[in-house]
Amino acid sequence: MNFLQKLKYIQRKNNSLLCIGLDTDVSKVPEFLYAYGDPQYEFNRRIIDATKDIVCAYKLNIAFYESVGEHGWYTVHQTLARIPEEIITIGDGKRGDIPSSAERQALLFCEDWEFSGTTVNPYMGKDAIEPFMRRNDQCAFILAVTSNNGAKDFQHLKLKGKPLYEHVVKTAKKWNTKKNIGLVVGATRPAELKRVRSLAPELPFLIPGVGTQKGDLEYAVRYGCDAKGEIAIINVGRSIIYASNGEDFTEKAREVALKYRDQINRYREKYFRSR
Amino acid sequence: MNFLQKLKYIQRKNNSLLCIGLDTDVSKVPEFLYAYGDPQYEFNRRIIDATKDIVCAYKLNIAFYESVGEHGWYTVHQTLARIPEEIITIGDGKRGDIPSSAERQALLFCEDWEFSGTTVNPYMGKDAIEPFMRRNDQCAFILAVTSNNGAKDFQHLKLKGKPLYEHVVKTAKKWNTKKNIGLVVGATRPAELKRVRSLAPELPFLIPGVGTQKGDLEYAVRYGCDAKGEIAIINVGRSIIYASNGEDFTEKAREVALKYRDQINRYREKYFRSR
Repeated sequence: MNFLQKLKYIQRKNNSLLCIGLDTDVSKVPEFLYAYGDPQYEFNRRIIDATKDIVCAYKLNIAFYESVGEHGWYTVHQTLARIPEEIITIGDGKRGDIPSSAERQALLFCEDWEFSGTTVNPYMGKDAIEPFMRRNDQCAFILAVTSNNGAKDFQHLKLKGKPLYEHVVKTAKKWNTKKNIGLVVGATRPAELKRVRSLAPELPFLIPGVGTQKGDLEYAVRYGCDAKGEIAIINVGRSIIYASNGEDFTEKAREVALKYRDQINRYREKYFRSR
Repeated sequence: MNFLQKLKYIQRKNNSLLCIGLDTDVSKVPEFLYAYGDPQYEFNRRIIDATKDIVCAYKLNIAFYESVGEHGWYTVHQTLARIPEEIITIGDGKRGDIPSSAERQALLFCEDWEFSGTTVNPYMGKDAIEPFMRRNDQCAFILAVTSNNGAKDFQHLKLKGKPLYEHVVKTAKKWNTKKNIGLVVGATRPAELKRVRSLAPELPFLIPGVGTQKGDLEYAVRYGCDAKGEIAIINVGRSIIYASNGEDFTEKAREVALKYRDQINRYREKYFRSR
């Protein structure tokens, strides 16, 4: 199966566009997990076990793993091993570099960890991210419109009357000869999300910014999905994984994840009745 | 000492603008090093010991360390511990992310590893790199014009008649309230290097692309330095560290490094006589 087939399969099977962001800050996990050798992994394992039937993907922001020291590399591996094969895994590292270095970055993300998707930064151009676009069962999500305030600093600058991010989107489409490119478009910017979806009707979108970052969920669904109400991957991180910091954190995480999953599906019903 | 003072001090002391790129591919180190527990570190240690009196900086591209597995994190630490305190160390990871994630990235690069400089990607804007710009003894080198072919894909797009990289340079200058911002400008693009130096006469430049990537050394010196013939950090990687792959690799590396150091100084004499 190529990436899009795999994505559609799991979105239908679990009836879910929800991606849980396992951006696990080891200082924020419930205290009782400190009794274990790797509290970060123990946290992830429990969140995965409690939510794997109601998500389409898990996204790991690598900053939270590389910053804990040598063990972070293992924790990523262990976490990935716990995620069922059919679920999409996204390695969020926003990488990209000159070819000889990008080769090593991709070796880690695409071959060693073997994420089914990665995030890459377009600023350095095609050869800086090409190693992430080699396999058609793996998707390179190119940053288009990010969810942070700084997005406006450069992404919205106008070139020939169009913002930079539109040039990124159009160029990404040209590069998509293997049908394995996706886009990152923040839920905090609904107008841009709508515009990008109109420019790229068939690309999978990774949509961060819902939850703590206050992106609008209804717009994320309405403008993030393709015409069939699919292939948007709506990431929610902190508001799910830190729903409680007591012994009930898995139950609470599942509760909140279910609320998101179901609310997303209600919006899909509203805007994509045909599905 | 703030970063610029530290940089000038070591450039004068070692009479050198040369930075050696320790982008050590563990599969390319001399075979006899495989007898050691950490061949990558053994390689770095010997290169550092053989060249530390003739460089101003060492740059580690983190892709070469994170991709070897858990030990890479240690190898970075060990390598940094071997570099004399007065020499600039640059953590080349081209990071940047939403604030909560960038915080973790900077925790690793600026506090744990404690590089004196880091490279950061401007696409996500100011808040995505702000954690790298907190200490005035550490410099955040913002990618402006990179040395790879892909640089032309977006960096050269025109906005209001000026290429994107010029907007990055002008914005970087505005952000430079703590005098701890630098720019990455590739030696493979001399016209752009000249232009960027004219726009930012006082910022330190990290200049990759000399050597294997065939950037022009004379232009790198002429247009990369400030008016005094200083604060350019000219990075040479593979053509120094892989000068030989036999038992004489340290001697050969020193030979080649000296050639670069001295050639750079001849160009400095030619273009900046006053120094």
